[in-house]
Amino acid sequence: MKDLIVIGAGPGGYDVAMVAKKKGLDVLLINGDKLGGTCLNYGCIPTKTYHKNASLIKDLKEAEIYGLKNLSYSFNYLEVKNRKEKVVNTLKDGINFLLNKLEIEVVNGYATFKNDNTIVVNGVEYQAKNFIIATGSKDRQLSTFPDALNSDDMLDLDILPEKLVIIGGGVIGIEYASIYNQFGIDIEVVEFMDRIVPTIDSDLSKRLLSYLKRQKIKFHLSSKALYKDDEFVYIEEKGKIVKIPYDKVLVSIGRVANYQGLSLENCHVEYDKRGIITDDNFQTSNPNIYAVGDVTGKNMLAHYAKYSSLRALNHILKEKDNINFDLVPSCIFSFPEIASVGISEDYYKDNDLPYEVYKTVYQSNGKAFSANETDGFVKIVAYEGIITGAAIIGYDASTLIHEMAIVITKKMSVLEFKDVIHAHPTLSELFNEGL
Amino acid sequence: MKDLIVIGAGPGGYDVAMVAKKKGLDVLLINGDKLGGTCLNYGCIPTKTYHKNASLIKDLKEAEIYGLKNLSYSFNYLEVKNRKEKVVNTLKDGINFLLNKLEIEVVNGYATFKNDNTIVVNGVEYQAKNFIIATGSKDRQLSTFPDALNSDDMLDLDILPEKLVIIGGGVIGIEYASIYNQFGIDIEVVEFMDRIVPTIDSDLSKRLLSYLKRQKIKFHLSSKALYKDDEFVYIEEKGKIVKIPYDKVLVSIGRVANYQGLSLENCHVEYDKRGIITDDNFQTSNPNIYAVGDVTGKNMLAHYAKYSSLRALNHILKEKDNINFDLVPSCIFSFPEIASVGISEDYYKDNDLPYEVYKTVYQSNGKAFSANETDGFVKIVAYEGIITGAAIIGYDASTLIHEMAIVITKKMSVLEFKDVIHAHPTLSELFNEGL
Repeated sequence: MKDLIVIGAGPGGYDVAMVAKKKGLDVLLINGDKLGGTCLNYGCIPTKTYHKNASLIKDLKEAEIYGLKNLSYSFNYLEVKNRKEKVVNTLKDGINFLLNKLEIEVVNGYATFKNDNTIVVNGVEYQAKNFIIATGSKDRQLSTFPDALNSDDMLDLDILPEKLVIIGGGVIGIEYASIYNQFGIDIEVVEFMDRIVPTIDSDLSKRLLSYLKRQKIKFHLSSKALYKDDEFVYIEEKGKIVKIPYDKVLVSIGRVANYQGLSLENCHVEYDKRGIITDDNFQTSNPNIYAVGDVTGKNMLAHYAKYSSLRALNHILKEKDNINFDLVPSCIFSFPEIASVGISEDYYKDNDLPYEVYKTVYQSNGKAFSANETDGFVKIVAYEGIITGAAIIGYDASTLIHEMAIVITKKMSVLEFKDVIHAHPTLSELFNEGL
Repeated sequence: MKDLIVIGAGPGGYDVAMVAKKKGLDVLLINGDKLGGTCLNYGCIPTKTYHKNASLIKDLKEAEIYGLKNLSYSFNYLEVKNRKEKVVNTLKDGINFLLNKLEIEVVNGYATFKNDNTIVVNGVEYQAKNFIIATGSKDRQLSTFPDALNSDDMLDLDILPEKLVIIGGGVIGIEYASIYNQFGIDIEVVEFMDRIVPTIDSDLSKRLLSYLKRQKIKFHLSSKALYKDDEFVYIEEKGKIVKIPYDKVLVSIGRVANYQGLSLENCHVEYDKRGIITDDNFQTSNPNIYAVGDVTGKNMLAHYAKYSSLRALNHILKEKDNINFDLVPSCIFSFPEIASVGISEDYYKDNDLPYEVYKTVYQSNGKAFSANETDGFVKIVAYEGIITGAAIIGYDASTLIHEMAIVITKKMSVLEFKDVIHAHPTLSELFNEGL
């Protein structure tokens, strides 16, 4: 009987398996699909690789002002994809190396529960005192678009379409739109809600929309994707049927928890449509079984998966930690980037609570100006003088936001933060030059 | 009689003049040279503008792997310079706009003290209850190289030399070497000490040297620049005379406090070779006269000037603040960047104190890998479990360091910081993935 079996080898699985092993537990890791999970193979990493390429191409559109005269090149998408594969494989080799070094036993295959303490993989039974389910999520399908691409397919295309219709203007849809637009694809986004990325602060969502439109991406908001024929995607936009010509259609309408094959009924683990039900320690209705990350349906970010698995392990080991799940930074790698952490301005507005807000535009920042990255703003939200939230749209938002994660963790007041010396000229000055 | 006269309109001057005016003081600003000072006209801003260009050119050296096939362009340096002028002028207009909006009286000219309460500018006398001297610094000259370029001259060249010898491998010399090297100039750096940028952690200095050498910049360490003739710069390197061919020579051997023209003997302000002597509130030996920034010789960073002027104002107004002058982040915009804050590992070593150090390499970070920015490392230094310092060499160090500035300000422990959720995939993960 193992101390711990971790089911799933994505960010919620491989990391906690290593930490558990280092702490002396006898661990088994079940890898159902590709090592590294969605994040490494079809999510965070491949898209950030493409993001770098896209960013360079974007800069080159203004080559003249950078002193690059008579610029010419031919865009070779296969090299772009090639670099992506190399990056993914190198990082996968890295995980493999660490698993081997720590002598963690890995079984490739899909697990089903036989009873409270037993799983079966490829016909073999494995028993453990504790389990962490980290089986992640999968793309939500749209039944009326049965043969459309999903985000995995899109990354693996060998030839790019000329015209792409993206159904769903959430985080994934918008990241793909931003990147592939720079690769020269003509893009139209169909979004059911009246704004893109409805999960973020409305202020940022609105601003992002205007930047993306300026980049020539087309949008159909408050629009329902109906079906497609050989030539057109049909949508209902403000009561009218609109036809959009396409070469490929990408459906990105969210992701669903992936627990269907686990036979949870055999191990007394409760779940609902959203995912496996857990408490704050990610313990399920079976106290020896934990579920972490996407499969809980609570939050589908890779780092949430990682930290929730660490919390689960700490709970198994009866160790206290300081992980604060109210402070999960989220980033969108669009052009420009978006990032936020803590409480949003919308929350205070919607709940009719008093708050203070401090907004500074990139336009006023010396470093942003020097780097010709003047789109965007940072916003700090405070309640009774204490900083409780931050949101950024602008260059390098994904790095910048982490300073605010610490500020909010430490419950700093506006007055105290204002006095923290920021180096000049840096983007980080954006935070306190507006206070 | 004015409440406050600020002498100097650089980062230590214009900002404090505005804050003072907003607080109701009757303020006069004396602008001896160009508005914005060295920082805006010949320092931080122009170099960061060039840095962006250089960074793009650097990326294009690997165009093939980014899918840019058959890339060609001709480098047009005048456009680069043109953009720099535009950026500088726009930011200058911004300062001007704010000064006008706040109705701050500005006098153009050089001030000399007549007595404790009076200065003379262009023959006109002005009196004030308090003065803030923010006259900055100027390039240190090398008497044996009387007609060499200084850093101001270099930025304003209309035609770039083919071969540049830089005397002095400190912050300025290294930033210039990094940038102009990308512009295609063949560069040799002559440094008197046995390592470049002797002010930073030796670990970073060593690593930076190896990266810069890989970029084909040549170095002569432990070498003394002697003189030059029409063809060669003559240096003494390890006891031997070495001749270096050159087209231009840049001398960047540091800066000296600029107080010589102020007639300080008339207002009882003491100074030494380093600069005007002040206490922790930047008050001079004359309690109504403060000196801030470079002119104190304590620290020659723009943000130090700004915050020291705010401290001086707070002291005048008898207001308390939380500015911590032990935590002044410093950044070097080389390739890759360098940044540090707090106590260095060298300090603990040199003083034979116990400490803990945590080092993580960019190579292990998913975002760095995706962005093909794998050079460098971050280093966190702790004392008795509390984080006291951080140093970074690597992409985006200048933004990253600010998270650690907050961590150190708030005296976070390693254990507490380890549990702060960092978004994946971001460079910021470098900090706690190694703990």
